[in-house]
Amino acid sequence: MAKDRRKKADGGLRSLLRVPQGGVSLVDYDTRATPGGPGGKAAALAEMAQVRARLAELQERLFAQSTAGDPRCLLLVLQGMDTSGKGGTVKHVAAGLNPTGVRVTAFKAPTAEESQHPFLWRIRKALPTPGEIGVFDRSHYEDVLIARVRDLVPRATWGRRYGVINRFEQSLADDGVTVVKVFLHIGYEQQRERLVARLDNPAKHWKFNEGDIAERALWPAYQQAYEAALDRCSTDSAPWYLVPADRKWYRNWAVAKLLLEHLELIGPEFPKADFDVAASRAALLKT
Amino acid sequence: MAKDRRKKADGGLRSLLRVPQGGVSLVDYDTRATPGGPGGKAAALAEMAQVRARLAELQERLFAQSTAGDPRCLLLVLQGMDTSGKGGTVKHVAAGLNPTGVRVTAFKAPTAEESQHPFLWRIRKALPTPGEIGVFDRSHYEDVLIARVRDLVPRATWGRRYGVINRFEQSLADDGVTVVKVFLHIGYEQQRERLVARLDNPAKHWKFNEGDIAERALWPAYQQAYEAALDRCSTDSAPWYLVPADRKWYRNWAVAKLLLEHLELIGPEFPKADFDVAASRAALLKT
Repeated sequence: MAKDRRKKADGGLRSLLRVPQGGVSLVDYDTRATPGGPGGKAAALAEMAQVRARLAELQERLFAQSTAGDPRCLLLVLQGMDTSGKGGTVKHVAAGLNPTGVRVTAFKAPTAEESQHPFLWRIRKALPTPGEIGVFDRSHYEDVLIARVRDLVPRATWGRRYGVINRFEQSLADDGVTVVKVFLHIGYEQQRERLVARLDNPAKHWKFNEGDIAERALWPAYQQAYEAALDRCSTDSAPWYLVPADRKWYRNWAVAKLLLEHLELIGPEFPKADFDVAASRAALLKT
Repeated sequence: MAKDRRKKADGGLRSLLRVPQGGVSLVDYDTRATPGGPGGKAAALAEMAQVRARLAELQERLFAQSTAGDPRCLLLVLQGMDTSGKGGTVKHVAAGLNPTGVRVTAFKAPTAEESQHPFLWRIRKALPTPGEIGVFDRSHYEDVLIARVRDLVPRATWGRRYGVINRFEQSLADDGVTVVKVFLHIGYEQQRERLVARLDNPAKHWKFNEGDIAERALWPAYQQAYEAALDRCSTDSAPWYLVPADRKWYRNWAVAKLLLEHLELIGPEFPKADFDVAASRAALLKT
């Protein structure tokens, strides 16, 4: 705990949650943990209000500076097992942002058209443009997760994709895209509870799929596939963060905080006027 | 006033704000009016919280039913003079919605590529898909507004566009798109105040353009162009609503309420489970 505090002071949540060099063994991570987090739910909600206000402010600056030609933007990638809360995180984190500057894409199983293209084709079409905050609910990582676990493509094909992804993300960084990748880590028991809760609420039946049960049987294979993705694709240009996600209040707070820390690193500024303010004011008052 | 109240009871804000058959003379509308609105700013803010909660609920149902094959969606079109608050309205109205189901597009002057296509080309690409709420900050109406006022195309070309737009919007309605078009009506003095306020705040300089002053000189021509658009393109399939917009609290409330009334007309419902809930529950508990 003392160690965690020190880390937080040094590099914020970014250094605390970043997947370490050499990879992770997911079973070693407590999915109910709240590293670096506020003391509890009430404190987290209170802090969220401040984080949201600051996020909105930085988002406006990011958007503003793009109108003066700054190419920078941010892409938040959310991955995690079913019910890990990807959709809920988007709702809570992006809710305070200006929707004009947010582009959310929820990737489903590839369509027939998408399947005829390289796996990054649909991803490239959904990238944020300068000044925008893009959010991916699932992403190109599905192509080394379900594609690997379900043998959707030959081993040699998904095996090559880790390198393809790293080069792709490096090229995004070269273009001024800050890539923030978050793995929402929930526990096996927690997933069962959440799936049962969906079945017990008719307003949530549409979120349930009979296939979800069969997927659970593949839990160990998915954990292994996630470990490989986190290990092989956590780079300095596009690091992976591991967010314990059994507690929704921590999950929402942590992702919002990671987003905020990365926006602060970008440090966007309102552009200076490229016109004579006093002259414009005088001209305006004559109209 | 008594008449307004009766109208509100009959058909809500929709009938109260709908542009009447035979068109409008914009100077006859008080831009500071608050027809059908709450008594004042405090009351409006309080009511907004309720409206937002209800909007979020209906949006979730709209999205849910699309997963079961229902094609319906909604498109909110915002038009208005500079500083009329199109961007601010998006921020306030859409802020409570789930960003995954919202697709906001702010149309600027057409790019070189867009200019090489028919004027509806870029519009079609930005349409909401089933279950989504699309928001246009400016739209295809610019092609009968600035294009007409600034002589960007021959008179015969913009003259034909009213019919083209009506057929286009009818085809959207045929496809299950509820089209809600809102004209944010501000006054000439109010615009000056807002432009001056931008100049007096360095954090807003990026929103100011020297051309904004020249555009003000064309105010009467723009009002005339708006009158023509409201008159010729307010159809039963895609009516225009006129929202007095000098008071921001009324503007935000009115647009949110119009959106809500249209979602209530759609009346989206959570789809029924297409699987055996009890059997799934039992199978799940064994995992």
